[in-house]
Amino acid sequence: LKFAVLPGDGIGPEVMEVALDVLKNAGEKFGFALDYEHADIGGIAIDNHGVAFPDSTKTVCENSEAILFGSVGGPKWESLPPKEQPERAALLPIRKAFSLYANVRPGLLYPQLTDASPLKKERIPNGIDIVCIRELTGGIYFGQPKSTTTLENGEEQAIDTMVYKTSEIERIAQVAIDTAKARGGSVCSVDKANVLETSVLWRKVVTEYFAKHAPEIKLSHMYVDNAAMQLARDPNQFDVLFTENMFGDILSDEMGVICGSLGMLASASLGAEQNSLGFPFGLYEPSGGTAPDIAGQGIANPCAQILSAALMLRYSFGENEAAAAIEAAVEKAVTGGIRTGDIAFGLESVGTKEMGAAVLANL
Amino acid sequence: LKFAVLPGDGIGPEVMEVALDVLKNAGEKFGFALDYEHADIGGIAIDNHGVAFPDSTKTVCENSEAILFGSVGGPKWESLPPKEQPERAALLPIRKAFSLYANVRPGLLYPQLTDASPLKKERIPNGIDIVCIRELTGGIYFGQPKSTTTLENGEEQAIDTMVYKTSEIERIAQVAIDTAKARGGSVCSVDKANVLETSVLWRKVVTEYFAKHAPEIKLSHMYVDNAAMQLARDPNQFDVLFTENMFGDILSDEMGVICGSLGMLASASLGAEQNSLGFPFGLYEPSGGTAPDIAGQGIANPCAQILSAALMLRYSFGENEAAAAIEAAVEKAVTGGIRTGDIAFGLESVGTKEMGAAVLANL
Ligand SMILES: CC(C)[C@H](C(=O)O)[C@@H](O)C(=O)O
Ligand SMILES: CC(C)[C@H](C(=O)O)[C@@H](O)C(=O)O
Repeated sequence: LKFAVLPGDGIGPEVMEVALDVLKNAGEKFGFALDYEHADIGGIAIDNHGVAFPDSTKTVCENSEAILFGSVGGPKWESLPPKEQPERAALLPIRKAFSLYANVRPGLLYPQLTDASPLKKERIPNGIDIVCIRELTGGIYFGQPKSTTTLENGEEQAIDTMVYKTSEIERIAQVAIDTAKARGGSVCSVDKANVLETSVLWRKVVTEYFAKHAPEIKLSHMYVDNAAMQLARDPNQFDVLFTENMFGDILSDEMGVICGSLGMLASASLGAEQNSLGFPFGLYEPSGGTAPDIAGQGIANPCAQILSAALMLRYSFGENEAAAAIEAAVEKAVTGGIRTGDIAFGLESVGTKEMGAAVLANL
Repeated sequence: LKFAVLPGDGIGPEVMEVALDVLKNAGEKFGFALDYEHADIGGIAIDNHGVAFPDSTKTVCENSEAILFGSVGGPKWESLPPKEQPERAALLPIRKAFSLYANVRPGLLYPQLTDASPLKKERIPNGIDIVCIRELTGGIYFGQPKSTTTLENGEEQAIDTMVYKTSEIERIAQVAIDTAKARGGSVCSVDKANVLETSVLWRKVVTEYFAKHAPEIKLSHMYVDNAAMQLARDPNQFDVLFTENMFGDILSDEMGVICGSLGMLASASLGAEQNSLGFPFGLYEPSGGTAPDIAGQGIANPCAQILSAALMLRYSFGENEAAAAIEAAVEKAVTGGIRTGDIAFGLESVGTKEMGAAVLANL
């Protein structure tokens, strides 16, 4: 399995090492070999190459079937202007370069871990199990014009453009359908069709596409402000939460925090192109950040990185069995009581490597 | 005090009646007389006049110093296209007609009512006390172009435009400053300056305006995705949460649900024009909706409507003492154990009128 390894900054390299160990071990069990190449991304790439997403890194990715990504950013680069900060300067260009249009984020909280959620236990007696599908290369992130001008009276005026077209909406609708089918679930499409033209089109295209291609899947619609409320009130009313880029940015992060620890949450960003194996090229990364406060201490939770590696096996390499085995091993380790500090809640907490070893032991 | 009364649909008329009683009583105590006129808005206006915001209603508002608003919408009109539904069709035109650019929403949860919040008690041991300031007439809600076209290849493409200019940002920054000063608090300005031009301008103008006009007020900045997380994690880290229209729509509703019962939350939408008394013209409405499931049963919580009336006294009539007295009376009644069903939690629950009577008794 040929993939690019971009550990990035902060805890990225520490948790990546453990995830690679788990992948190696899974390969021995399930009969595949790893063939990966490291490259710089984010802050470290700014330091070493002057840019957050260097051409050399792009080449490594182009020569791969998938990207395993750590996380980027940190205090060292926080004084840069917002658009030059590692997160933005690495993520948007890499999404664009590989047409990573479909962000898939499982919102999973094991019932044994409800203490980690800010929500009352009685709201989530069985934990949380939803998925957020976010469109990732359209909408207001990339729409043109995007500019600032000086008006005649001397004031400045800034403009961003939110734009969607039929085919962009259809291809992400298909991902929502596939996800719902795999879960035996339903889809709630989130928009602001009472205010936005893009949302009116979104709702229309989604409705027609589902009617034509997956009439058996239950589809509902919700306004984004209501969705932000419902997520915090009763997350499990959703199964597949499906929305456009900007709304997905906000709602998937709200979902993440409600699921307790970002250290447990993986994500897949699927590309429009297939890799040489006939699977979607994709980028796989933890939902959390670089956790600069604990970086270098060997205590970060590697589970999100391990689970991201599992998503890579499933989506970009078709290794479904190995992916499921890794996911089960993480669940067993954690629910069995092996916990890093972020999810310890009174239990003794272990380090990054010990957590990895516990996952391996359960594989 | 001359104001327009627009009760709207669902529970609107029931809770409005009680709020008017409280206002009358406060007038007797604090020496002012009421002079109000009723008019139709929302669904009932669609039924009676064919439009959600009829000209006759606009005239009533124009002849007033403020608007006391109930809530609009309901199942009867849900089959209308999103843009013709009462909420949208009433609220956006009335905001535009009176330049209601500043939405002020207190996010208040009494410590005695933490059971009502979906958040764990240990996250909010002293309840919640924050305020959200949302810009209400700019951004992507009204920006042009906003259109849908057919592309050459037959696909449809929709566009919305997010636009802000210096003066729009400055005037709402002043509201954030006034609010923070009145509370002795700080301001967190929320944007997406790593992606949006409008946010880059927002951050720059806000920073410069605060430095010039209120250097003593602590100002911080946060990205909107992070703000959605932080609100659900630890709401009281905020004091004044300050943001643009679309982000404010989402975050203020998330804040609302975290504060437990929408039946307790009031809001003020302040206009750019002064009324004949030299105070801002404004519209005052509960944060919740028409609650069609309980409408007509006399059991709705009138507190949000009563507290909205108090905000009207404060902002549009300068009756600060009366406003504070009403707010204190609501708090006393509720924390004293008089509860409508939405906030009963094991206590006996009373009806709309009884709740109103309890507030009056504490006034
Ligand atoms: C860093 C930023 C550009 C990015 C986004 O908004 O998409 C991040 O918040 C994310 O969600 O991956
Ligand atoms: C009904 C809708 C147009 C409105 C908005 O989005 O502003 C509502 O959600 C609100 O927040 O008052």
